[in-house]
Amino acid sequence: MPEPERAAPVHSDAPPPEGLLDAFWRYERALMADDVPELDALFAAGPWTMRGDAAGLLVGHDGISAFRRGRGGAPQRRVAAVHVRVLGPDTASIVAELAPAAGGRGLQTQVWRRSAAGWQVVVAQVSGPPAAIDSRIWREVGTPLVAGSGAGPLVGRRVAVKDLFAVRGHRIGAGVPAWLAEAPVETATAAAVQRLLDAGADVAGIARTDEFAYSIAGANPHYGTPPNARVPGALPGGSSSGPASAVALGQADIGLATDTGGSIRVPASYQGLWGLRTTHGRIARDGLLPLAPSFDTVGWLTRDRAVLAACARVSAVGVPAVAAPDRFAVAPGLLAGLEVPVRDAILGWAARTEAEAVDLGDVASAQEAFRVVQAFEAWQADGAWLDMHPGAVSGAVAARFRVASRVSRDDAARAQEALAAHRDRIARALDGAILLLPSAASVAPSSTADPAAVEAVRAQTLRLTCVAGVLGAPALSAPLLELDGAPLGVCLVGPRHSDDALIHRAAALPVP
Amino acid sequence: MPEPERAAPVHSDAPPPEGLLDAFWRYERALMADDVPELDALFAAGPWTMRGDAAGLLVGHDGISAFRRGRGGAPQRRVAAVHVRVLGPDTASIVAELAPAAGGRGLQTQVWRRSAAGWQVVVAQVSGPPAAIDSRIWREVGTPLVAGSGAGPLVGRRVAVKDLFAVRGHRIGAGVPAWLAEAPVETATAAAVQRLLDAGADVAGIARTDEFAYSIAGANPHYGTPPNARVPGALPGGSSSGPASAVALGQADIGLATDTGGSIRVPASYQGLWGLRTTHGRIARDGLLPLAPSFDTVGWLTRDRAVLAACARVSAVGVPAVAAPDRFAVAPGLLAGLEVPVRDAILGWAARTEAEAVDLGDVASAQEAFRVVQAFEAWQADGAWLDMHPGAVSGAVAARFRVASRVSRDDAARAQEALAAHRDRIARALDGAILLLPSAASVAPSSTADPAAVEAVRAQTLRLTCVAGVLGAPALSAPLLELDGAPLGVCLVGPRHSDDALIHRAAALPVP
Repeated sequence: MPEPERAAPVHSDAPPPEGLLDAFWRYERALMADDVPELDALFAAGPWTMRGDAAGLLVGHDGISAFRRGRGGAPQRRVAAVHVRVLGPDTASIVAELAPAAGGRGLQTQVWRRSAAGWQVVVAQVSGPPAAIDSRIWREVGTPLVAGSGAGPLVGRRVAVKDLFAVRGHRIGAGVPAWLAEAPVETATAAAVQRLLDAGADVAGIARTDEFAYSIAGANPHYGTPPNARVPGALPGGSSSGPASAVALGQADIGLATDTGGSIRVPASYQGLWGLRTTHGRIARDGLLPLAPSFDTVGWLTRDRAVLAACARVSAVGVPAVAAPDRFAVAPGLLAGLEVPVRDAILGWAARTEAEAVDLGDVASAQEAFRVVQAFEAWQADGAWLDMHPGAVSGAVAARFRVASRVSRDDAARAQEALAAHRDRIARALDGAILLLPSAASVAPSSTADPAAVEAVRAQTLRLTCVAGVLGAPALSAPLLELDGAPLGVCLVGPRHSDDALIHRAAALPVP
Repeated sequence: MPEPERAAPVHSDAPPPEGLLDAFWRYERALMADDVPELDALFAAGPWTMRGDAAGLLVGHDGISAFRRGRGGAPQRRVAAVHVRVLGPDTASIVAELAPAAGGRGLQTQVWRRSAAGWQVVVAQVSGPPAAIDSRIWREVGTPLVAGSGAGPLVGRRVAVKDLFAVRGHRIGAGVPAWLAEAPVETATAAAVQRLLDAGADVAGIARTDEFAYSIAGANPHYGTPPNARVPGALPGGSSSGPASAVALGQADIGLATDTGGSIRVPASYQGLWGLRTTHGRIARDGLLPLAPSFDTVGWLTRDRAVLAACARVSAVGVPAVAAPDRFAVAPGLLAGLEVPVRDAILGWAARTEAEAVDLGDVASAQEAFRVVQAFEAWQADGAWLDMHPGAVSGAVAARFRVASRVSRDDAARAQEALAAHRDRIARALDGAILLLPSAASVAPSSTADPAAVEAVRAQTLRLTCVAGVLGAPALSAPLLELDGAPLGVCLVGPRHSDDALIHRAAALPVP
């Protein structure tokens, strides 16, 4: 058993109460040995005990204990110095300066209290040395990685580029290590990246995506799941997970991303960001690795509505903008399957816009046709490579590609025909109104949620997100609602090429 | 005046004592308004009050107040939630979840106490969201930036490459933004980088240097001064400041660096690392931006002696290794001008190695000859460019280049002749023994120290470091001593090409 107390100087403003330092060093030894029962015994029982770190605050002994059981031990460290502040006969605060074995310094503040159970921690905050790069969020970062080349409205803004876009001198990784290992160094920069550079923005770095962007969860087994900056322990949303987390954490101002089936709207919703899926064809896709070209769109994630507006304005290829109508619509039938709090939140909010109820008909069939076409095109894009690289993608994404491999060209053609009919019917039902719906079927699920539960939420969310995909219409996610403190985006689906107008219109939407 | 308390939910395990929350919100308002007198009044007076953050722990009200006065305000933030734990009628802990205006989340733990002065903070720890990249330390970082290409002894080790070495596909920045702006993308990787890649190491990133490496302080006015990972608020040492801080913080395992006049030994000493200045000519310099080729050497900074040994072994160009002698020497005359604690520390320690006292003669003259040759060569390397880019370098480095611009070719030739004589005399005095001396004349000075004081320490340090430069000999800095908790390196200068043997020998040195 290590004896960490041997070396550390102890500074105390008064003689430490009996047993306090013994308890402190017992805790330290237990932490280094990952002795969870001992650690649990040294933290006060009950719902008020708190432990905070860079990932957030845990409140309650049970949650703290579960965290300890799940993490597989704390990083090894030495206590470099101890500072005791005696607050009373049975209360003290101890600040420890920490020397992690892996370098750098850490800091730990504890509040200790003596009860019948002996000395126990009631409040703790710990911080360790920062990593050079958070590899869950980023693949490469620079100061900047690529400097802006213009003097436009985006000067000083930092862009996190989803790892599907070409950046000259860098590779495309697509969230798949085996793909990255074979990827060539790009010789030209993607058009959508260049537009932002020309407007003065800097590329801060290249950020993570779900494997081949074929997911909306935001999990990546190779690089780790990016943190949800708003809901500790929750999924970030995907597939534009890295750009979303980077923007939500303030590590970038703009996430340059793609949305095929929800990959911008879902992380925007989960992390309280603005996000725009653009009108199909409005933004050039040169230099973008495709997933499903019938539905692939370029868009952005931002904390600030005006920054999103500037991105949309400087990036459009030249198709004239269309005004947004004055009328809003909701589709109660589309929302019928949602959890009650989500449905109530969106319907309650939409009522304040005087949204008219419309019937979009059989969206489930539209969703199925969307799924078939997306699957066929995804296999066209990546199937040959995947066949030559068994095991390169994992879990739900691998399962999705297996299903995709069995979609025939005839299946896809029939689904495209069906989509055209759904498109006409939904457009007629909307009659030019802006459709209001939640950007996702739920707030962000826990990152330790059961895969089956994540898959169920995915299906519900895709029912919502497919509407814009079927229409080829712009869809803006606005961070306007919260459920129990977790963000829920409101999605505005407008007429084709009303992108700019939608963002403008959102400024006047009711705020709860 | 903002009213931050309007929105935040307050959770408390018991009714908060009267006045506590008022004081908490007063503090929050004062912080947002940078009202230092009010902040000072809300922190308890005296030497025991503590405030910790990612930069380290401040102990004592005065130091905390000085920090507040110097920083120009805290980042704007909103309090998202408040958790009160009542510890007694006059004691409470308040944990606040913070929503910084720039994104992400922060956390703040405070211990409050009521006295005649009212409610005051006695202990506080605060953490904010991490940056994407610490631009003081790094210019570019990847996961990795360049993957290792071999299966040698350095597999899994991460290299921070000083921004003087070519890395294919990247530019050389040399610590000078105007240089970087014009730098071409490198088409080949420097030999010293490639050796590490071939041995299995990954390049984690490109790390900061003092401007054109012409300093040993570690300050850089363009990118910010890297933090000293061991001594909060102190200079990191330079010119290999970025690699040194990266390794000391655990953000890399190997700092690939250069040492002309101390640029590896000084940061190693200041931050408690192993560092090797190699035998002149032992490591290839292809792809390295020169400072003063008569003295430029390649070397490494590590936390671990064995990793340093592996770097030296895999990187040598093929000159046979030489054994290290069994005998140690100290030069009391060389140490005469040092501060007493430094001199006592090194002499006391060296006595345990049975080091013999030697007289190296007039090292001051050798130092001057070294300075003249270095200055001449530095101006040869960078003068033409500097003439065309007025203002590109700043402060002490600019002053040094101005002096350098006035050194004539004849001055340099005379200094080279003098150096040859010094070399012979010093080598005779050492008679094959390993010279022991401090790696720097002091522990790390404060980063807010008076420039004149930094310059005085620099001159004293260069007196020590020039010996290896004059001899073309290897110099190992070993992290063996501390003065009041701040590291001080012990330097071993051995015969030419005894690099590997010096590192081996250091394993058996006495530890205080």
